[in-house]
Amino acid sequence: MNHAIHFRVLYADTDQMGIMHHSNYLKYFEAARHELLKSLEVAYSQVENKGIIMPVIQAHLKYIKPAYYDQLITVETEMICCKGARIVFEALMLNPAREIISTSTITLATVCRDSRKACHPPAAITGIFSDKAIQNS
Amino acid sequence: MNHAIHFRVLYADTDQMGIMHHSNYLKYFEAARHELLKSLEVAYSQVENKGIIMPVIQAHLKYIKPAYYDQLITVETEMICCKGARIVFEALMLNPAREIISTSTITLATVCRDSRKACHPPAAITGIFSDKAIQNS
Amino acid sequence: MNHAIHFRVLYADTDQMGIMHHSNYLKYFEAARHELLKSLEVAYSQVENKGIIMPVIQAHLKYIKPAYYDQLITVETEMICCKGARIVFEALMLNPAREIISTSTITLATVCRDSRKACHPPAAITGIFSDKAIQNS
Amino acid sequence: MNHAIHFRVLYADTDQMGIMHHSNYLKYFEAARHELLKSLEVAYSQVENKGIIMPVIQAHLKYIKPAYYDQLITVETEMICCKGARIVFEALMLNPAREIISTSTITLATVCRDSRKACHPPAAITGIFSDKAIQNS
Repeated sequence: MNHAIHFRVLYADTDQMGIMHHSNYLKYFEAARHELLKSLEVAYSQVENKGIIMPVIQAHLKYIKPAYYDQLITVETEMICCKGARIVFEALMLNPAREIISTSTITLATVCRDSRKACHPPAAITGIFSDKAIQNS
Repeated sequence: MNHAIHFRVLYADTDQMGIMHHSNYLKYFEAARHELLKSLEVAYSQVENKGIIMPVIQAHLKYIKPAYYDQLITVETEMICCKGARIVFEALMLNPAREIISTSTITLATVCRDSRKACHPPAAITGIFSDKAIQNS
Repeated sequence: MNHAIHFRVLYADTDQMGIMHHSNYLKYFEAARHELLKSLEVAYSQVENKGIIMPVIQAHLKYIKPAYYDQLITVETEMICCKGARIVFEALMLNPAREIISTSTITLATVCRDSRKACHPPAAITGIFSDKAIQNS
Repeated sequence: MNHAIHFRVLYADTDQMGIMHHSNYLKYFEAARHELLKSLEVAYSQVENKGIIMPVIQAHLKYIKPAYYDQLITVETEMICCKGARIVFEALMLNPAREIISTSTITLATVCRDSRKACHPPAAITGIFSDKAIQNS
């Protein structure tokens, strides 16, 4: 349940402070979550095709060091909890020197697209946590 | 068929050159087109509700002077042509000194969302051009 | 120290869920902070001209209800604390029905652009809090 | 002078039409130009460190087919002309089926950051075109 992706800071991601604008981190934390889900064989595009959307309902970000244009950044993501219709992810963003530049805790809800009501996450996700509970018992 | 909107350059719109990033102009030219359509009583959200989408199929932009953070920018838009399933808009972007900072010619297609095939624009749009043709005759 | 701004959700702000993408909220919370600072006669562009930058170092966001394309959104911002080189802002985002759609607590640092070291916030900001302390005493 | 990059369409790049928003293409055409320049040993970050900025002054884009979330897109870029303080790039964007989804012709100016006046492009760029002229003679 741990996964790493890499991305390069786009010129368009910078702002006039000369660093990646703080709003853009959320785009890459999201890409990292989606790759983690894919590694669990839960492609986000397939989730949406089944009529489930997974909006972000809470985000807590720390910006520790700046990210600069053209740096190759690593995002390490872990799915730490899945309870009811909520899934919580924690992630680290690292610069090429492997220094932590940002951390995030992001909570998604699983929602039925048509009814806009909470629904159960895909079984491939909930399964991980029940397996984990069994291993721990 | 001529309409003006105003917007303030966001900090997030800037890049490390200290100017509005060239990709962001398209967002505001789009907002200006949508306000022009609203002034014709064609709300873009209603067009989509009828199953028609209007993707951009061509864009020609000139960037003449930079736009800076926090400047109040004006966009003046004109719908210059509507032929078959294509609508062409021309626009000027002006800084607070009323200098032209950018021009655009942007072509939209009208497409049926479900079939993804070309379709006729809403009558409120085509009507304008037939009225115009009558006035000119 | 309380200030409200209004903005209209751009088409470019939406994602394929049909709602404003969660990263874009940060752009408007930022715009709202800058307008609050202006109302205190602390234009952010002047702060930067004096060699001070104010990067976001922490952001806590709750997404309560979606924001939709073309909605006129209100952001109410309050500066709640200024201690050392840190300034904390709290904000509410409201839809046209005045329902709270998002809340944020965002912490900025004041940093000398050249040395990249922490520095004191502009006096116009620190002054508010010392005045407040006097009033409360 | 021909170079290819690959990128994956982010969820944040989509809009409520369910396709990559037309403004985002410019970010990736830019990334592709920068990688082309790097392949010529002209890192854009080094150009800026020498006090030269290269703003986009003209962009002509055709959007032929949509780009969808999570598609792996290829951008093939060629530098086709360098005359005075202007450099022209042409690029193709291709979907995983190698269909052309977008084309662009983008003109950059080379500008001295401090004086904001036109200046000569870096020798590594102009050299290519003089070499080419010699080869063709």
